[in-house]
Amino acid sequence: MLNGIAKVLKKSNIARQLYRVYKGIDFSYLITQITPIIVKKSKFDFERINLLVPSINREHFFGGVSTAFKIFDEIIKKGNKYTNARIILTDAAPNKEAIKEFSKYRLVSFDDDTDAKYQLLPVNNKYQKNIFVSENDKFIATAWWTAYSSQEIIRQQLNLYNQDYHKLVYIIQDFEPGFYNWSSHFVLAESTYRSEVPTIAIFNSSLLKSFFNTRGYKFFKEYYFEPQMNETLKRHIDLKPIRKKKQILIYGRPSVDRNSFSLIIEALKIIVYKQPDIHGWIFCSAGESHSDVALGNGVVLRSMGKLSLDDYARTLKESAIGISLMISPHPSYPPLEMAHFGLLTITNSFANKDLSKWHQNIISIDILTPQNLCNSLIRAIEKYNDNCNIGWEGKSSTKYVNDETNFGFIDNLMNDMQNI
Amino acid sequence: MLNGIAKVLKKSNIARQLYRVYKGIDFSYLITQITPIIVKKSKFDFERINLLVPSINREHFFGGVSTAFKIFDEIIKKGNKYTNARIILTDAAPNKEAIKEFSKYRLVSFDDDTDAKYQLLPVNNKYQKNIFVSENDKFIATAWWTAYSSQEIIRQQLNLYNQDYHKLVYIIQDFEPGFYNWSSHFVLAESTYRSEVPTIAIFNSSLLKSFFNTRGYKFFKEYYFEPQMNETLKRHIDLKPIRKKKQILIYGRPSVDRNSFSLIIEALKIIVYKQPDIHGWIFCSAGESHSDVALGNGVVLRSMGKLSLDDYARTLKESAIGISLMISPHPSYPPLEMAHFGLLTITNSFANKDLSKWHQNIISIDILTPQNLCNSLIRAIEKYNDNCNIGWEGKSSTKYVNDETNFGFIDNLMNDMQNI
Repeated sequence: MLNGIAKVLKKSNIARQLYRVYKGIDFSYLITQITPIIVKKSKFDFERINLLVPSINREHFFGGVSTAFKIFDEIIKKGNKYTNARIILTDAAPNKEAIKEFSKYRLVSFDDDTDAKYQLLPVNNKYQKNIFVSENDKFIATAWWTAYSSQEIIRQQLNLYNQDYHKLVYIIQDFEPGFYNWSSHFVLAESTYRSEVPTIAIFNSSLLKSFFNTRGYKFFKEYYFEPQMNETLKRHIDLKPIRKKKQILIYGRPSVDRNSFSLIIEALKIIVYKQPDIHGWIFCSAGESHSDVALGNGVVLRSMGKLSLDDYARTLKESAIGISLMISPHPSYPPLEMAHFGLLTITNSFANKDLSKWHQNIISIDILTPQNLCNSLIRAIEKYNDNCNIGWEGKSSTKYVNDETNFGFIDNLMNDMQNI
Repeated sequence: MLNGIAKVLKKSNIARQLYRVYKGIDFSYLITQITPIIVKKSKFDFERINLLVPSINREHFFGGVSTAFKIFDEIIKKGNKYTNARIILTDAAPNKEAIKEFSKYRLVSFDDDTDAKYQLLPVNNKYQKNIFVSENDKFIATAWWTAYSSQEIIRQQLNLYNQDYHKLVYIIQDFEPGFYNWSSHFVLAESTYRSEVPTIAIFNSSLLKSFFNTRGYKFFKEYYFEPQMNETLKRHIDLKPIRKKKQILIYGRPSVDRNSFSLIIEALKIIVYKQPDIHGWIFCSAGESHSDVALGNGVVLRSMGKLSLDDYARTLKESAIGISLMISPHPSYPPLEMAHFGLLTITNSFANKDLSKWHQNIISIDILTPQNLCNSLIRAIEKYNDNCNIGWEGKSSTKYVNDETNFGFIDNLMNDMQNI
């Protein structure tokens, strides 16, 4: 409802004033992520696996969401044939394209207490709405606010059915409080890791799991999976290596703070006045579209925008050096992709993360400053100038490029979920 | 220079386009805090203590800056009579009022290589400017970017004079990376705690020091001082306690994220529909001016703005309950002030912080959510309803209200600073 009002009222400035206080309640300081979902008793008692994700629309369906669906699909596939599945969308209703993509699923609304085998329930307009929950509904959370909502739902389920907590499955793909400064959002995100609701954590990478453990977080059960190279990219890596160009590829996403684009720019602005053969090098940025950046001394960082996987693979193969930063204990994929495609790859350490142990091509900066990044880049350029094939000679010490399935824990996980 | 251009050019939209790229360099992604300061050899070889602070203008001169000056003044007072003092202002030039306040200091500019005993040097327009540094200039840093600049200055000083590092004194009053999400700013702030420049850390509180130590930070030397009640407030606390009103005082600063105003509002929006005698209570907010907030059920949170210390003391004395959150390991002053003025005080724990050990009036929430804050508030109201004098009966177990000097470490610190 709130979103509906917002759409109408936020169109004018005068209306915005009216909107701020609606029915005697001021919405100025609303923390939209934690708007409560009220639970009603279902007339059914079937088992149903619920996946809570922000959105399945194409513009949101990548990285984390796509990984979560791989796990969800495994669980459904291996599950009891009488088990139903429900996808609960917390942030955005599915658009036509998404509904087509999920054609197996029936789109249902708040009022539907239904036993449809596959259900798609948007709850983005959840203010003062109810959802139906059976005594055997089980929940899988992804982003922190889907975990927050799941924990509130499980608490209500416990009271409604006078039973013990169902376990929450929580797919943790980063330390999400780190996405915020110290604030309400920080503490709310962090609270989801210390809930009284027993939680089965699935970590994206052993690095992330040990970061949590070192910080003192402990869950009922903990599983993890390791990063694996994307299938499309893997097809390109098997082809014959080509000669590397004097090209420096930046993973450049100005809108994603933890990729630290501004710090890369500061470093490049130093090197353009320091490195003698700088005008022989091409600087390009892939990941997100932005204006070209004039670095000084006539050197420009060209934006290639978000490339198709095939174009990305081609660019990786021809580039000599890569820079990809990630201010998080999560390894992130681009530095691994770069290193395995023969780029001398500069990234950063963070807490327990040190990717230089993962591949000989990876240089991991411990104290990340523009000066230190510039110095690492100069050393990489010198290495290339000594031997332009050096990147193709670097060896991996991970199983990042492999064909094994990554979710070997699913059987154990499903066993954990069964016991209330 | 850059700021000068900005002032002129940022006035129009077309000009802003021109401004983005100036002399072939794009300033869009500038990290202003780390603009380098270039160091030039001074013709003098005197000892000089430099304090780097963002600003001494009244609107910035409170809390942390004021504390830093207390320490600086102690050092100057106890120092060698031939030692000079220089205040370096990184963010704002002093206005007339500030210059008057610091009348002992002579206002100098980048070009002045002077032996004036007391100097005030604004470096806010530091882009491509130099400052003069003698071989015996020593530096005291405050905010993280003043530490970043100090470390760069000390490195240059080492090279110019072919000597070892001078030690940096770093007054650390919070874990400042926490003021940012994981980003360039986060890592740059964090880098100042791991510099190769030997650092004498002075922590504002033992709590903050142990937070750093637990996270693995280790400095050349470490000192700390504990929070002490403000002198003006202390005069009020000795007066006769008055009967507490049914008044809930919020430390409300919507612009300071770590005070978590939005989470307080979410909690109050729950309690207004839950607590039977809610209409008997007054809700008021002090700390920063904001619009009154309609909480629902006809209850309004009234903003009192930033009060004078005398008015603040009066409000503290008449209020029964206080809420003051601080998403940081720093204890922060308002919850201590509230507790010692007889308010049942609700605050939050954070990492190693648990203020409930400091005063019987303090309730510290471990997992801070609106629901948990609401529950704590209900319990505090019930306590008051049972005994309206309960707040005056609570005992302190800290030396927060005392007349001892807090900087007993200055002699040792000055000894540490002497040895290059």
